[in-house]
Amino acid sequence: MLPEWISLDCPAPSETHRQAALAREAQLTKPLGALGRLEEIAVELAALQASERPGADRVPVVLFAGDHGIAARGVSAYPSEVTVQMLHNFAGGGAAIAVLSRSLGCPLEVVDVGTLAAEPVPGVVVDKPRRGTRDFSIERALTAEDVVFACEAGRRAVVRQADHLPQLIIFGEMGIGNTTSAAAIAAALLSCAPSDIVGSGTGLDAEGRAKKAAVIAAAMTRHELAPGAAIADVLAAVGGLEIVALAGAIIAAAQRRWPVLIDGFIVSVAALAAVRLNPSCRPWLLFSHRSAERGHALVLDALGARPLIDLDLRLGEASGAATALPIIRLACALHNGMATFAEAAVSGRES
Amino acid sequence: MLPEWISLDCPAPSETHRQAALAREAQLTKPLGALGRLEEIAVELAALQASERPGADRVPVVLFAGDHGIAARGVSAYPSEVTVQMLHNFAGGGAAIAVLSRSLGCPLEVVDVGTLAAEPVPGVVVDKPRRGTRDFSIERALTAEDVVFACEAGRRAVVRQADHLPQLIIFGEMGIGNTTSAAAIAAALLSCAPSDIVGSGTGLDAEGRAKKAAVIAAAMTRHELAPGAAIADVLAAVGGLEIVALAGAIIAAAQRRWPVLIDGFIVSVAALAAVRLNPSCRPWLLFSHRSAERGHALVLDALGARPLIDLDLRLGEASGAATALPIIRLACALHNGMATFAEAAVSGRES
Repeated sequence: MLPEWISLDCPAPSETHRQAALAREAQLTKPLGALGRLEEIAVELAALQASERPGADRVPVVLFAGDHGIAARGVSAYPSEVTVQMLHNFAGGGAAIAVLSRSLGCPLEVVDVGTLAAEPVPGVVVDKPRRGTRDFSIERALTAEDVVFACEAGRRAVVRQADHLPQLIIFGEMGIGNTTSAAAIAAALLSCAPSDIVGSGTGLDAEGRAKKAAVIAAAMTRHELAPGAAIADVLAAVGGLEIVALAGAIIAAAQRRWPVLIDGFIVSVAALAAVRLNPSCRPWLLFSHRSAERGHALVLDALGARPLIDLDLRLGEASGAATALPIIRLACALHNGMATFAEAAVSGRES
Repeated sequence: MLPEWISLDCPAPSETHRQAALAREAQLTKPLGALGRLEEIAVELAALQASERPGADRVPVVLFAGDHGIAARGVSAYPSEVTVQMLHNFAGGGAAIAVLSRSLGCPLEVVDVGTLAAEPVPGVVVDKPRRGTRDFSIERALTAEDVVFACEAGRRAVVRQADHLPQLIIFGEMGIGNTTSAAAIAAALLSCAPSDIVGSGTGLDAEGRAKKAAVIAAAMTRHELAPGAAIADVLAAVGGLEIVALAGAIIAAAQRRWPVLIDGFIVSVAALAAVRLNPSCRPWLLFSHRSAERGHALVLDALGARPLIDLDLRLGEASGAATALPIIRLACALHNGMATFAEAAVSGRES
């Protein structure tokens, strides 16, 4: 039902380069391991990039936006019209990810993969099968064709980044109502109660969260999302176009040997779907941050992921991944630029 | 006994600017609080800098190096000669902090405030009362005059940074044996057992840590470092010249309204001493990271500090503070560069 390429194997990281990078770390002028996770990241990136000198200078950011029929059920603190307003704000440079991308020198592409916008927004790529998903409290959010389209839209966005020669790629999302869709997907994939996953999204209180969990629980019953349901069915029943596009983009990037720096809750849910669809993409995923959104920790655990930072972020838009990027850049600078004990004529450990 | 300026009040942060920054955060195009600690940092820095547009572009790094007589007791995995070898590596650009400073565009000054070096190392400022401390398992590490000299050396280093117009300043340290000195100071100031504080330093195993703790415990008895001992006495008994210089530099920077980004265990112990000597410097301290060194968490708790990152770093050299700096820069970029709801014509929360 999904496109054939979705299940094609991603290449394996280079063990040769991993070993070479580990050997270099042991020679740099510091106690072995004293740079902790910075050493780990540099080694990991060396293996993924099959390079002796890993780097994260060329890092495109692609943000997928979509609207959600379920927003009509009052599951968000903000109205759906904000999604399209934010498209203008992304293109205009005033949104958080626009500021971050500019600061970091990352090219930013925004893809409308399914917002309610009736007209193209200048500066935004339009690649959508429909305007918004259907209300999944009433009917399936997407048809099988919509799901395929969104997967392909994700891959097309990846293909467009090739000119940037990405050393790493960041995906983000925007869409009022999409924490509800993501929580529903996560609950189905992890076979857990919606109330264990549901968080505040853009700012719900306890009552709002309870309502959101009830909406999801009812939908899971309606759409018969029992443990073991096919991923494609889950995505069609309660998915979002931007979430499906993210899953497709993650797999497509990994198939191209591009490490993906995963953002917060929603991108992590898309990553979970991607890994379930194609486990060979897992080694290509680096995890940037642990968000304040409740369900994120569960999703990270399911992925065996240990994010770099934990700063109570819960904005989405790839803002967490962008915030963690400088740490990866510094890890590479240290790995590549530090002197060895021999070069610096520094004594090693006493025996 | 300490110089009079040590106890002079540091200015208070600007509440006016804090309130203005908080008001601006509420207007930026994101759910309030969605950028978590990035919002907090920007607001804090606005208050400290008394500015509507906080910034962290101009950030000098000053690294104080010293040697320790206690290193003769086998408390470190590396020999004392490494300290002076590392001075060459700092000046030559091959050490971790040299790479980080270069990557971040931060000027780096290295001050030999008491290494064993008999000759000046090119590119390193020499400002020391003696070569290394005395072995505190036998006698007091420093005289009262040494402590005063090191405090003044810290202040002189701060004064030299004024030309950089610092928006923030980072202090670091290097000195074989200095986690032992720092652990002894922390045990005395926090009235806790050395074994609760002592960590692996540059790489001790459990046996090495036990020996290190025993050396400290014996010194505390010998020097009568009972709870409530005067800070200056503690510093003279078991201190290090670079640690005293750090404490002086922290106070001198805060008195000049320069926020200080605190590094790991040793700088945090110096910060604890600084805050005990002059509590009015506390608001000027921002905490960069939680290190893997065992006692750091206790010292951070005593300071009521919540660091930004936790990456298992345990190198020192200001490497943790430098690694966290880009997060502060991005926090400022977001605060200053994001559009408001009104500017971007984005709807706010539904009532």
